[in-house]
Amino acid sequence: MTKQTNGYFTEENSIDVVINSMSDECEPRLKEVISVIVRKLHEAVKEIEPTQDEWMNAILFLTKTGHKTDDWRQEFILLSDVLGVSMLVDAINSRRPNGASENTVLGPFHLEDVPSLEMGANISLDGKGEPMFVSGRILDVEGRPISGAKIDIWQANEDGFYDVQQKGIQPDFNLRGVFTTGDDGRYFFKSAKPKYYPIPDDGPVGALLAALGRHPYRPAHFHYIIQKKGFQTLTTHLFDPDDAYIHSDAVFGVKESLMAEFKRIDNAQKITEHGFNQPYYEVVYDFVLARSR
Amino acid sequence: MTKQTNGYFTEENSIDVVINSMSDECEPRLKEVISVIVRKLHEAVKEIEPTQDEWMNAILFLTKTGHKTDDWRQEFILLSDVLGVSMLVDAINSRRPNGASENTVLGPFHLEDVPSLEMGANISLDGKGEPMFVSGRILDVEGRPISGAKIDIWQANEDGFYDVQQKGIQPDFNLRGVFTTGDDGRYFFKSAKPKYYPIPDDGPVGALLAALGRHPYRPAHFHYIIQKKGFQTLTTHLFDPDDAYIHSDAVFGVKESLMAEFKRIDNAQKITEHGFNQPYYEVVYDFVLARSR
Repeated sequence: MTKQTNGYFTEENSIDVVINSMSDECEPRLKEVISVIVRKLHEAVKEIEPTQDEWMNAILFLTKTGHKTDDWRQEFILLSDVLGVSMLVDAINSRRPNGASENTVLGPFHLEDVPSLEMGANISLDGKGEPMFVSGRILDVEGRPISGAKIDIWQANEDGFYDVQQKGIQPDFNLRGVFTTGDDGRYFFKSAKPKYYPIPDDGPVGALLAALGRHPYRPAHFHYIIQKKGFQTLTTHLFDPDDAYIHSDAVFGVKESLMAEFKRIDNAQKITEHGFNQPYYEVVYDFVLARSR
Repeated sequence: MTKQTNGYFTEENSIDVVINSMSDECEPRLKEVISVIVRKLHEAVKEIEPTQDEWMNAILFLTKTGHKTDDWRQEFILLSDVLGVSMLVDAINSRRPNGASENTVLGPFHLEDVPSLEMGANISLDGKGEPMFVSGRILDVEGRPISGAKIDIWQANEDGFYDVQQKGIQPDFNLRGVFTTGDDGRYFFKSAKPKYYPIPDDGPVGALLAALGRHPYRPAHFHYIIQKKGFQTLTTHLFDPDDAYIHSDAVFGVKESLMAEFKRIDNAQKITEHGFNQPYYEVVYDFVLARSR
């Protein structure tokens, strides 16, 4: 039962009074989490000194964010993303030894049960966009190739849309594939150059971004999940450093170490060798997995 | 447009990167508010170090809170209430000179356009519950009576329900009334003894309270809004100090200065004088209004 407090609520003792109202029987981790939230929330209110109208605007913003959320749209995750909270939680849960590849956010467009493909396959099923050839190795922190690593890749198309956003326009599983490395740890596949795209910005989070003078765009990237027993799973992106939004990702997902040169190849012999009929972009990037903790 | 940052997001610089993404053209107060929110939110995340599952539970809690909110139920205000935020905002916006009566929260049951009554009227329209006689004066900080002060009163009944919660059971405007003071600044009315009651606890906020080992009850009280031109409007409660929940109000609305003795009177002559036919409770309480700022 709620504890009887020694003092009544005042502006000065507000944090202690609220924290002390929790019962001693409250589960310890929940009590710890709520104590921090109450303390930081009250510190914020004391620093901001909101008017009653400003407080009501905050209530209405949260209400609109809740009402925009349904089975297909998670506006609170978007809010967490644009405030850098999602990336911070990811960073805290993905601290890695020096030399290991860095994590970044999963995003909402990952699919389970994507077809496994032969190494070298073209994941662009409709052949649209500028062709790419992506390759590299999966290594341990000592630089040794990892055999049998499962590489799950997905990306947006030349217009900045994932297949699941364009059902009937893009083929199912377009620009997705699962590959498994051999003894040399190498991976390589053909694809189409991804484009930057906006996060959904027709809701309260989009309105907030506009009011803050921020755009809703994410720079072009490939998604990777790389898994191998005995190693920490790596959920990350590869970014195009020449993208217009590389310095201002709306969700703060970019890390310096996750940029790979998107190199344009117009050498006719190389074009033919790779089975393309036009210039293509080449990306070479090695991923390094940390051992399981 | 979103500012280009000097550095990419890391666990160490997360606060600066997010704050610096706001445009220089952002409205200054909004920029100030969001800067504090981002800083305190990131401080909380760094201290809590939530797992991905804990973060998702927070997202789902906010989602459920949004989905519970509709035209009749404001679950985010309840959340603000039980975390002491509503009282803190009220305290910050109601700092008063020494000697002036203290504010407390408005609550969701105030009605506009309540009938004006003759001083001394009985606001218990159904005659149920234990009778009360409430009286006092409206004064300025120098102790002089304020004439023409408008006193808006509302309260729960003997079962802890407001009229609007029991349409068809209680008469319309039961236990509500608007009174105006004369030259002596006095007010007095008859009523029925209010009872403690739970805030709505069948939603996610109620589930949170239960998990924290807190009950949902508010101690018995009268609501007052007292208004007079030239003075700060006083929105407050009068509490029964003998209530079971006086030390553990679920929304932290109790202040030491807002308690008034609920004195049981069983003297036959006084009962007859006041027009009751059973023992009654007497409350005497003066309110002191601060001059407008």
